[in-house]
Amino acid sequence: MVKAKVFVYANRFDGFPKESDIQLVEEELPPLKDGEFLAEAEYLSVDPYMRGYAPALKLGTTFIGGQIAKVIESKNANFPVDKYVFGSFGWRSHTISNASSLSKGRVDIPPHVLPDFKGLSPSLGLGVLGMPGNTAYFGFLELCQPKPGNTVVITGAAGAVGTHVGQIAKLKDCKVIGIAGSDDKGKWLKEELNFDHFINYKTENIRESLKEVAPKGVDCYFDNVGGEISSTILGQMNRFGRISVCGAISAYNDNKPTKASIVQGHMALKELKMEGFIVTRWADRWMEGINQNMQWVQEGKIKYRETITDGFENMFKAFTDMLKGVNYGKAIVRAKALVK
Amino acid sequence: MVKAKVFVYANRFDGFPKESDIQLVEEELPPLKDGEFLAEAEYLSVDPYMRGYAPALKLGTTFIGGQIAKVIESKNANFPVDKYVFGSFGWRSHTISNASSLSKGRVDIPPHVLPDFKGLSPSLGLGVLGMPGNTAYFGFLELCQPKPGNTVVITGAAGAVGTHVGQIAKLKDCKVIGIAGSDDKGKWLKEELNFDHFINYKTENIRESLKEVAPKGVDCYFDNVGGEISSTILGQMNRFGRISVCGAISAYNDNKPTKASIVQGHMALKELKMEGFIVTRWADRWMEGINQNMQWVQEGKIKYRETITDGFENMFKAFTDMLKGVNYGKAIVRAKALVK
Repeated sequence: MVKAKVFVYANRFDGFPKESDIQLVEEELPPLKDGEFLAEAEYLSVDPYMRGYAPALKLGTTFIGGQIAKVIESKNANFPVDKYVFGSFGWRSHTISNASSLSKGRVDIPPHVLPDFKGLSPSLGLGVLGMPGNTAYFGFLELCQPKPGNTVVITGAAGAVGTHVGQIAKLKDCKVIGIAGSDDKGKWLKEELNFDHFINYKTENIRESLKEVAPKGVDCYFDNVGGEISSTILGQMNRFGRISVCGAISAYNDNKPTKASIVQGHMALKELKMEGFIVTRWADRWMEGINQNMQWVQEGKIKYRETITDGFENMFKAFTDMLKGVNYGKAIVRAKALVK
Repeated sequence: MVKAKVFVYANRFDGFPKESDIQLVEEELPPLKDGEFLAEAEYLSVDPYMRGYAPALKLGTTFIGGQIAKVIESKNANFPVDKYVFGSFGWRSHTISNASSLSKGRVDIPPHVLPDFKGLSPSLGLGVLGMPGNTAYFGFLELCQPKPGNTVVITGAAGAVGTHVGQIAKLKDCKVIGIAGSDDKGKWLKEELNFDHFINYKTENIRESLKEVAPKGVDCYFDNVGGEISSTILGQMNRFGRISVCGAISAYNDNKPTKASIVQGHMALKELKMEGFIVTRWADRWMEGINQNMQWVQEGKIKYRETITDGFENMFKAFTDMLKGVNYGKAIVRAKALVK
């Protein structure tokens, strides 16, 4: 008899999430049926989208999220014991899966055995070689359509997706401007990741700084935050500029609708194109993104960083730290202590 | 010696335009050179975009706009005397043109002799068979990509562009919901123009009314107004919905940036696509739009209405009436009194 530890979405977030909103419970798992396997979480993901989707989630169910787990028992030949799998199993230590998607939602990629990461940590399947990596690859290349010489602005630039987008933009010969909330992050983006410029939204006037570092205007904007910062950037865009809307972190924790200067004037006068996306739209091209990112990582063209919180029981802290912007690159939880 | 009456942009609009912002002056025109022609205005256009572009216009120059004029003297074989021409000549009674674009701006279509309107008024070259007609034709069909059975919402629905978009949407077998500011306009849209539903934004709760008349959500949104109304509509859109941003009338007369609930959350979660445009982007397909609209008008499939103000000297009143939403369909000025 296996007991799973499960974080249940107990109370709807009201503003910034409180620890009591998520409840840790134990669940007894039944014996496996044919076609099923039992997976034990090794790495769990905390991502901004979890806060964004929270208003639509059902209370009393496992809180959402992807994890890298090891198959520890199996009655499914496609999921052999000891293989690492990715699964959108949610915040839980042990999961019985029949390999189909758990959720009917659109955030889900079916469970699958990780491809050969060639010596790299399986945890990268939650980051640079997983959903955030594909979010950057498809969301930026498909919707921003960057051309050599274009000026690209990225908000949430120091997160898992932002750092990745910036590096792809450099590979495409673009000028890259990252916006984030600390000078130390900026130093990292410029010195390690080759960003051309950094703007600290907490201490700088974005409009003025942008005019200085992007005097010819902005062609592509990869938007993780929404709100007033985005309106300001739209005001600096060039005709036929492209905006890829990945998220709206700036507003996730507001109770009432966040207001910002309207975008429609800029959209019309400059003939801008803005498109929002959820990365699972490209589910049928999933491995194309993973393989390209893996090649770039192996060639040293895409660098990554993980901010690791130890202990499954610290999921909530890792989640709220990420929402506060504590992380550099991908925020993950290593369940180790529990995995033993 | 011909004297032209010219409205000059004298003082930058500060909020709602004041009569003193535009100044009527007389200008002596020189004799024609080879390649030039002299045109006398018969119909002049007043459009929302004039307010939208005003902040970018140069003071002391002729205020912008299109007109239908008659060639009264010519040294250009392509512009024979007595022909009607369309020209972006601005608010002026007489114009010497060498047939090239006057402005370097993007709002300009080069002067051209009107095609044969087959007995219809040449004034339609400012409306249903001119720029507003093409704005509806290209801006809606190209950017909203309507499919049979789609639900289409239009703001500024009773204006020249809005009425036209709604009727094209009906021709494409869509369900059409118009939003405007008076029940009398709504009656006209439903009874004469075959709109399925009407919402009065001044007296109704748009969110509630929209839920009622579009219970399956909104697929296409043709946006003339921007601002909070648009944010509300985005909140009711379906996955992969398309938004064509034609203008932002709601904000044109505000001194400071208008704020509204942010759009990025809806954009990302519902994977919406929003694109702004200026109709001259389709200059190379201009006659395709004119000819299609002419065919629809002749077949009785597109109805139009003109709100005519008499007298060139009343340009400013016609302009501000249009900004206040007094007009049904296309607002124009008939220069007649002056024309002889």
